[in-house]
Amino acid sequence: MTRVAVVGATGYSGGELCALLARHPSVELAAAFASPGGKGSPFGRLHPSLGGRRGPDAVPFDLGACLSARVDVAFLATPNETSAGLVPALLDAGVKVIDFSGSFRLRDASAYPAWYGFSHPAPGLLAEAVYGLPELSDGPAGEARLVANPGCYPTSVLLALAPLRRLVDFEKPVVCDSKSGVSGAGKKADLAYSFAELSGNFRAYAVAGHRHEPEMRQELGLSPDAPFSFVPHLLPVYRGILSTVHVSFVHPVSPAAVSSAYEEAFAAAPLVSVRPPGDLPELKDVAGTPRAEIGFVLLAGGKRGVLVSVIDNLLKGAASQAVQNLNRLIGLDETEGLT
Amino acid sequence: MTRVAVVGATGYSGGELCALLARHPSVELAAAFASPGGKGSPFGRLHPSLGGRRGPDAVPFDLGACLSARVDVAFLATPNETSAGLVPALLDAGVKVIDFSGSFRLRDASAYPAWYGFSHPAPGLLAEAVYGLPELSDGPAGEARLVANPGCYPTSVLLALAPLRRLVDFEKPVVCDSKSGVSGAGKKADLAYSFAELSGNFRAYAVAGHRHEPEMRQELGLSPDAPFSFVPHLLPVYRGILSTVHVSFVHPVSPAAVSSAYEEAFAAAPLVSVRPPGDLPELKDVAGTPRAEIGFVLLAGGKRGVLVSVIDNLLKGAASQAVQNLNRLIGLDETEGLT
Amino acid sequence: MTRVAVVGATGYSGGELCALLARHPSVELAAAFASPGGKGSPFGRLHPSLGGRRGPDAVPFDLGACLSARVDVAFLATPNETSAGLVPALLDAGVKVIDFSGSFRLRDASAYPAWYGFSHPAPGLLAEAVYGLPELSDGPAGEARLVANPGCYPTSVLLALAPLRRLVDFEKPVVCDSKSGVSGAGKKADLAYSFAELSGNFRAYAVAGHRHEPEMRQELGLSPDAPFSFVPHLLPVYRGILSTVHVSFVHPVSPAAVSSAYEEAFAAAPLVSVRPPGDLPELKDVAGTPRAEIGFVLLAGGKRGVLVSVIDNLLKGAASQAVQNLNRLIGLDETEGLT
Amino acid sequence: MTRVAVVGATGYSGGELCALLARHPSVELAAAFASPGGKGSPFGRLHPSLGGRRGPDAVPFDLGACLSARVDVAFLATPNETSAGLVPALLDAGVKVIDFSGSFRLRDASAYPAWYGFSHPAPGLLAEAVYGLPELSDGPAGEARLVANPGCYPTSVLLALAPLRRLVDFEKPVVCDSKSGVSGAGKKADLAYSFAELSGNFRAYAVAGHRHEPEMRQELGLSPDAPFSFVPHLLPVYRGILSTVHVSFVHPVSPAAVSSAYEEAFAAAPLVSVRPPGDLPELKDVAGTPRAEIGFVLLAGGKRGVLVSVIDNLLKGAASQAVQNLNRLIGLDETEGLT
Repeated sequence: MTRVAVVGATGYSGGELCALLARHPSVELAAAFASPGGKGSPFGRLHPSLGGRRGPDAVPFDLGACLSARVDVAFLATPNETSAGLVPALLDAGVKVIDFSGSFRLRDASAYPAWYGFSHPAPGLLAEAVYGLPELSDGPAGEARLVANPGCYPTSVLLALAPLRRLVDFEKPVVCDSKSGVSGAGKKADLAYSFAELSGNFRAYAVAGHRHEPEMRQELGLSPDAPFSFVPHLLPVYRGILSTVHVSFVHPVSPAAVSSAYEEAFAAAPLVSVRPPGDLPELKDVAGTPRAEIGFVLLAGGKRGVLVSVIDNLLKGAASQAVQNLNRLIGLDETEGLT
Repeated sequence: MTRVAVVGATGYSGGELCALLARHPSVELAAAFASPGGKGSPFGRLHPSLGGRRGPDAVPFDLGACLSARVDVAFLATPNETSAGLVPALLDAGVKVIDFSGSFRLRDASAYPAWYGFSHPAPGLLAEAVYGLPELSDGPAGEARLVANPGCYPTSVLLALAPLRRLVDFEKPVVCDSKSGVSGAGKKADLAYSFAELSGNFRAYAVAGHRHEPEMRQELGLSPDAPFSFVPHLLPVYRGILSTVHVSFVHPVSPAAVSSAYEEAFAAAPLVSVRPPGDLPELKDVAGTPRAEIGFVLLAGGKRGVLVSVIDNLLKGAASQAVQNLNRLIGLDETEGLT
Repeated sequence: MTRVAVVGATGYSGGELCALLARHPSVELAAAFASPGGKGSPFGRLHPSLGGRRGPDAVPFDLGACLSARVDVAFLATPNETSAGLVPALLDAGVKVIDFSGSFRLRDASAYPAWYGFSHPAPGLLAEAVYGLPELSDGPAGEARLVANPGCYPTSVLLALAPLRRLVDFEKPVVCDSKSGVSGAGKKADLAYSFAELSGNFRAYAVAGHRHEPEMRQELGLSPDAPFSFVPHLLPVYRGILSTVHVSFVHPVSPAAVSSAYEEAFAAAPLVSVRPPGDLPELKDVAGTPRAEIGFVLLAGGKRGVLVSVIDNLLKGAASQAVQNLNRLIGLDETEGLT
Repeated sequence: MTRVAVVGATGYSGGELCALLARHPSVELAAAFASPGGKGSPFGRLHPSLGGRRGPDAVPFDLGACLSARVDVAFLATPNETSAGLVPALLDAGVKVIDFSGSFRLRDASAYPAWYGFSHPAPGLLAEAVYGLPELSDGPAGEARLVANPGCYPTSVLLALAPLRRLVDFEKPVVCDSKSGVSGAGKKADLAYSFAELSGNFRAYAVAGHRHEPEMRQELGLSPDAPFSFVPHLLPVYRGILSTVHVSFVHPVSPAAVSSAYEEAFAAAPLVSVRPPGDLPELKDVAGTPRAEIGFVLLAGGKRGVLVSVIDNLLKGAASQAVQNLNRLIGLDETEGLT
């Protein structure tokens, strides 16, 4: 049994993670902590599916307590700057880390002040960190110490767009119009996220500068000049992201060519399904699951295309993706504990 | 033109009130204030229907500014203790007050510490205050200075129950099981009222002590021993209250007898509709309107009954009821500005 | 491995059932059928969590095909009259049945015309059928052939009320005010259940005659004269039932006495949690889980009480309760495949 | 008083229209009809705000009855093919028509079979019909007989995009990613629009061929080859459309240049508000109102831009826009009866 700890267990993605780890056959959830500064919670209240179950209560965070739990891997579902500070200490103590924050996703340390509002305290680790989107990379091998779990929006966009990288004309505008459920904003008391303000409502936000954009550009290998736009919106639903990606192709493509590109990319990806041409997935097809579904429609004789990708932001966009990364780290089948 | 001011214009019911007053043909909205301690807001942002309109911006509250606006009537959509403090000063300055809070609804000053958590600072005014549920009283005549606008739950329950007062057996349990939209809790940053917590959710709250219960008992003339229960619940909708009132009758009643009792009570009440026996109203029948609708079903051969009452908590439960009270105060038709 | 079939697999509760059975360690889902007259569906579309999984596609129902699947147990998630017709044929062929409909819940055949609108075609089986609310009975033993899976509302009400049977005064009005998510109405094209009509809405329905009422009265052992009311309401949420049960006690009770009564009843019930006095569960505490949670508040010095019970109508109110019943039928631990 | 009739009064936009006409100071609603083939409804049930009011009940449609009501103007809130058939008869009888359907919006009769599925029965009227988006044209003058009320999506997109026509580079992809509330689909019993299917859900639809696309292209004067995409999505809200329009500019623009273009276009448009650069409207800013709000953000130094437009699909996208058109037809101020 691999011993693990969760820091940030009382948040929405942390709670989902605890629920997954509690039923993972090869893992022991040895300790659970609130985010630094946060209050604890009984184990049974971390997620509805844990009600009545026994497990470690989430306690206020304490680094000493975390280290003395002698875990092999720690999951950090903590704010960006918190993660940036905790990771070096954990690695030094020989604990591997899977980090939900953005603090180790960008390879360029100089990007942090502008996009994240702080100077990176451990720039030397950025090169070492593995970007953990398993379906699009060889992913973390056993020797990795630090996995940067991808952002929820980048997960949804990259799964739809990266497999078509050679077909898409990135010199023409590529528009990623994404819509996310409210849980993506985290568990917080904020009028802007109150039921009264969001029920029956819908809005775009962070139009010219969401911090998930540089992450997408990096993973797609785009230059800063590429006319690539990412516009997130807030849906009045609890969970799920649907990204509508509007592209032009270098040469007109056939539906079969697009399907082939996806099949090749996802041949060994049990958690990603690609629909036949013209068949688009919707949010409820994946809500509550660790899967991604992708569909596409071609326009103008194959000159342009609309790609639609859906994931559960709390699972494939956070907790279940972290479990995939854990499984790869410890040499298990990628879907262990997820299906 | 009657000159009025609104204090608490930036809240949900205050915003609805401003929208009503802005199109009231006999009223001039002379000034608008945030609740004491709150921030201002442009007039056009107080309510969606005011967008693009001209009117007084809501400014931080200042008693001097309020008095110097030389208004005839001030509406207080402010917290209980705030209203309790403001009312004497306004009355002393010759300004009539229509108060949305509970501070002048109970006639017994000794009830305030237990139910509202403060000793009443102006107990002498409690006897003078008029309880402003127009359909159930002669209501405020022109000489009244202070109107206590009823609570949203009491409005819904009393309209269904009070007209049947002589038929209902109050020695047997009378159960008021009420369900309210989220706007009833006001505009606030509170995790318990966040979209993420309330979407797909439903709960009872304040089961053994909601402060609207003594108000209902008072208006029904019930003794403290009467087995009368009020249990509020929080619906995942923005606006509206549906109260299900379960009663036993002193003698078995016929549908016609119940209909008659309502007809008699509401003969001169243009904003209350009573459905034929067995036809129950639902929330959307009144959402966004100043009206109440009532329906009923008899059980066990007329020994027992289920009364269902629906109102919009922000309108008939607050803002439009206040406009009815204003109209009565200044001698207009009760529905002026409402239909 | 116990071989099972599901009839009605394409509905909401049928889909949840397939999802549970697909991961049950001791069960093989050998066949899946739509309700008689309905269209089939690929296995992966029966429930989001089955996406990408292999299993039997749901095909149009055919009795011969069902029998030739040589299953030990058939689950019927079918309309009342359909179940009433299918059960005898299945039993005759040696297939045990767990029926989701109301057709075998009432022991009195003469009640069917009035409450269900048809004369019971197999009245002889009513005495044999076991009412399968495991926590409140010894439940189906291994020799049972036919289990009537309880209604969703009765499950929620009986779990709260039955354990207090000796404390509650059933000569005084007992009011069960229940609120259900929309999935309880099944998967159907009906304007009354459209998003446009239900969003932001709430209503009571079937006030004087929901067919779940005789089921509750039967299981509580109440006479037809007992002043027992059941009033269901339709919540704008997908899943879950919250029942608020208002009772009077024969003698004033203490919180400890009520807690004791529940503890005794649920000592061996791992899927039911009772909260401490005054702590009430809400819908999201159980949505998506096979559990029930119960809370209570005493009023008037223990003379009266408010009981609040929450379940997921599709799981504890249907599919997971059926799995509990299956486990008991085949001699497994009651929670096998559920936790 | 101008006498008017509404055909299709029992639908969602027809009900809103009746509510507007009932309080229009210069209009008499002389008759109301269901859509041909539909059932009637009491006047008070056409819209919640009409509850308790007196007016013409909606009756099953009959052309003779409609003509004998001797109205000046008829509003048709009817299906496309129905409108196409009714319009000639009404015009022949001297009744002016404001049509909510798409049947007279396209000037090219040959487009109807492909986009609307029928051959146009009155192609000669297409040239005569006035496309009634008042803010973007001189609109219907007094002599017009037939106004094609614009589609809800085109209204939202054109208001944002048309004023920037000279700045936008239409040779580069222009993407209109629109999201609509469910009421846009009309009042119908359809599983795909049930609460159970849509709650918590979100989807794109009609990606490669929504019939509102040719209407947008026509009004923007785009060639069939222009890389212009329109992708609608279905939001889990009752009312409102938010369109996110992604554009490239011919030359880099400044925020002030964009603001100027809008100011010029909407100088005389009291119902359209344009926000300062970077300030984006959201759905609730206009829900329930006849207004449109527009905001924008520039990207990449003004090379590209994101335009966000919000309207209430039932009002500015249908009923209140029709009242604007009526007002222009009969020579009243455009906002009469709307503010």
